[in-house]
Amino acid sequence: MALLSEPIARLVEELSRLPGIGPKTASRLTYYLLRAPRDQARDLAEALLDMKERTILCAQCFNVDTQSPCATCSDPARDRSIICVVEEPLDLVAIERSGRYKGLYHVLHGAISPVEGVGPEDIRAKELLERLKDGTVKEVLLATNPNMEGEATAMYLARLIRPLGIRVTRLARGLPVGGDLEYADEITLARALDGRGDFE
Amino acid sequence: MALLSEPIARLVEELSRLPGIGPKTASRLTYYLLRAPRDQARDLAEALLDMKERTILCAQCFNVDTQSPCATCSDPARDRSIICVVEEPLDLVAIERSGRYKGLYHVLHGAISPVEGVGPEDIRAKELLERLKDGTVKEVLLATNPNMEGEATAMYLARLIRPLGIRVTRLARGLPVGGDLEYADEITLARALDGRGDFE
Repeated sequence: MALLSEPIARLVEELSRLPGIGPKTASRLTYYLLRAPRDQARDLAEALLDMKERTILCAQCFNVDTQSPCATCSDPARDRSIICVVEEPLDLVAIERSGRYKGLYHVLHGAISPVEGVGPEDIRAKELLERLKDGTVKEVLLATNPNMEGEATAMYLARLIRPLGIRVTRLARGLPVGGDLEYADEITLARALDGRGDFE
Repeated sequence: MALLSEPIARLVEELSRLPGIGPKTASRLTYYLLRAPRDQARDLAEALLDMKERTILCAQCFNVDTQSPCATCSDPARDRSIICVVEEPLDLVAIERSGRYKGLYHVLHGAISPVEGVGPEDIRAKELLERLKDGTVKEVLLATNPNMEGEATAMYLARLIRPLGIRVTRLARGLPVGGDLEYADEITLARALDGRGDFE
């Protein structure tokens, strides 16, 4: 006897292909869905198909949306003189959630990583430089991740953008709000000291 | 601007409804699927629909299968004199994986839990007793979970089955293989001592 009947084994296998979901979690999810109302499984299946059918990359900023130019790029209220460069669409969502940024975006879809064989030509770097040509953009905020790949990507882009006479900025480094000084790593603490400001 | 375009927000929401998957994991999975080949999302969606369409509960043991009686119940090589009672289909899979059990099963689909308002009538207890009537079954192995609900369920069933003159057994309690004596809780250790056997 096969341990799992075929439709169940197949769903376990498909779920196991998702990142961070091992065979045990996949089994648990499968049996959960088995017991869940038929509607829930169908809604999930439809959401999956719909997402693949209807989403496209914005031809300007390469964010994911149902239209191109995307909602942000076509929003007249957005400040067109500043572009915030992020690695992934989720980074854009995180910055939007802060409510503090009103400019445009550029999604690289990756970061330069020699270890993983990702070079400048594998991310949307050329397209970013293309957007800077007409002189509208006065500032590029490099909001890549504060890790090795993100820093390498930021350095690479800064070197190309500065000669165009455009201001290049990046997110402040320092202690995370709500964090504990005792547990801060030495590099974060060093950055926080370097970047200290007047007490207001 | 909505933070997430509608098809993406919808998939995030549907994934968040799954147990153990919070909004952050749901977002990560969604953006993973966004980048994944179209086939992968479609295969997952189809596996979901297929699983719901094709699986049924076995009318005898209430395991999940594509046929009723299920593959186990209709397997002539199975020992029909013993029934192993489990809470969920995944428990059955775990026991099958051990390769040590060759009898039939009965899946309760739950355990008695006064706290959660699950009574004997909410699990497949009556159906189990029905199966014991014709005298074929000589032993019922109560393999419910070793927790409060599982023990309560086992006690409830044992009280009903014993008067029928059928042997009622349960899985041994003791130290898990590969475990560390130092980290065993006192109840497990007490059970392991009570159940000690001759060194072979």
